Amino acid sequence: MGVDRVALSLDVACFAVVDDILALLLMERADEPFAGAWALPGGLVGAEERLDAAAARVLAARTGVEDAYLEQLYTFDDPARDPRGRTISVTYYGLLPLGNHPVRPGRGAQAADWRPVDRLPPLAFDHDAIAAYARWRLTQKITYAPLVFRVLPEAFTMGDLRLAHEAILGESLHPSNFVRQMLSRWDLSPVPGARDRRTRRPARLYRYVGPPEIPGPPLR
Amino acid sequence: MGVDRVALSLDVACFAVVDDILALLLMERADEPFAGAWALPGGLVGAEERLDAAAARVLAARTGVEDAYLEQLYTFDDPARDPRGRTISVTYYGLLPLGNHPVRPGRGAQAADWRPVDRLPPLAFDHDAIAAYARWRLTQKITYAPLVFRVLPEAFTMGDLRLAHEAILGESLHPSNFVRQMLSRWDLSPVPGARDRRTRRPARLYRYVGPPEIPGPPLR
Repeated sequence: MGVDRVALSLDVACFAVVDDILALLLMERADEPFAGAWALPGGLVGAEERLDAAAARVLAARTGVEDAYLEQLYTFDDPARDPRGRTISVTYYGLLPLGNHPVRPGRGAQAADWRPVDRLPPLAFDHDAIAAYARWRLTQKITYAPLVFRVLPEAFTMGDLRLAHEAILGESLHPSNFVRQMLSRWDLSPVPGARDRRTRRPARLYRYVGPPEIPGPPLR
Repeated sequence: MGVDRVALSLDVACFAVVDDILALLLMERADEPFAGAWALPGGLVGAEERLDAAAARVLAARTGVEDAYLEQLYTFDDPARDPRGRTISVTYYGLLPLGNHPVRPGRGAQAADWRPVDRLPPLAFDHDAIAAYARWRLTQKITYAPLVFRVLPEAFTMGDLRLAHEAILGESLHPSNFVRQMLSRWDLSPVPGARDRRTRRPARLYRYVGPPEIPGPPLR
């Protein structure tokens, strides 16, 4: 074809709400460049590999995490982003359900760990910018797409819903204003006979009954 | 590096409101594959070229259109999307101000034209899917980002703002509900002593005084 070709990598900014705080999944690089530095889990895309599949593969291979909701974020192209030569990175962001998610460092990673988003170490390549953009997109998107219900159990209290929002947005929310806002923003249906997941006492639980979010092109 | 490399193309779905109807800018391909078929303006990305620059270059080279607001949309990767072999396409969408925008077909294009989004011809490659997704994103995004003010003159009537919304959304909107919604959604400031752009009579005009939208990663 006589066509310029580029190396294509894929990096994943995967979030979870751990102990009521938004955390980002990082790996400590075993190999150069940036050996010993923290980075987003990432890797090169195979010549025939689909991007969605590469995102799930890279995340599992580097950190052992397998059940994330993943969505394409943005394609980063600064020619200086990789010292080995120009590498375009298609990035994804991910979300995991509320709770702890054990990690297991894999090939190319000498450690993997969750870190609170407000106390991230300096990251390799342009991963600081990718992580910041992923977080910004997440805080924007939970206001207009039903992403937050990926984080919660199917039936949840308004308290849990508020904790998830507070963790993702990084701010305190007024409880009764919050309930009013959620009931007007989303299709939420009360769950009869429900009990609170922490206290096991009868409680007012809801589930989300609106349409699912559309993560990417609807016609793929 | 011993790394798989891929061919990278870039396609642009550029919209304008022409005669109160949302239109998409297309080119008729001069070359194989898909010679004679309509397609989004597109081309290959140079080995050292930035994606934002490639989007503006491709659009100008194929259609003569130079002043579009451009924003990265999504990276499409179906291995079957190009019969010549695997080509990843980074796509952009564009918006032009209200009014007519003459086109001039350039290299690789035997024609270029605006087509109403509801009467598009079948498009080459996976461009039907790209065009549909770009339109969907546009209709979503004007509800939460101040994109529509890219389409209007700096001072506009509520009637103009409504026409732009009706064209982009493809539906009629109730005038007084619309005004209420706009004044609560956006920071709009009345323009003193203004005249209507069509009738030249004194009229109530507004300008948008809120923050600009953030098109891509804020930390690039």
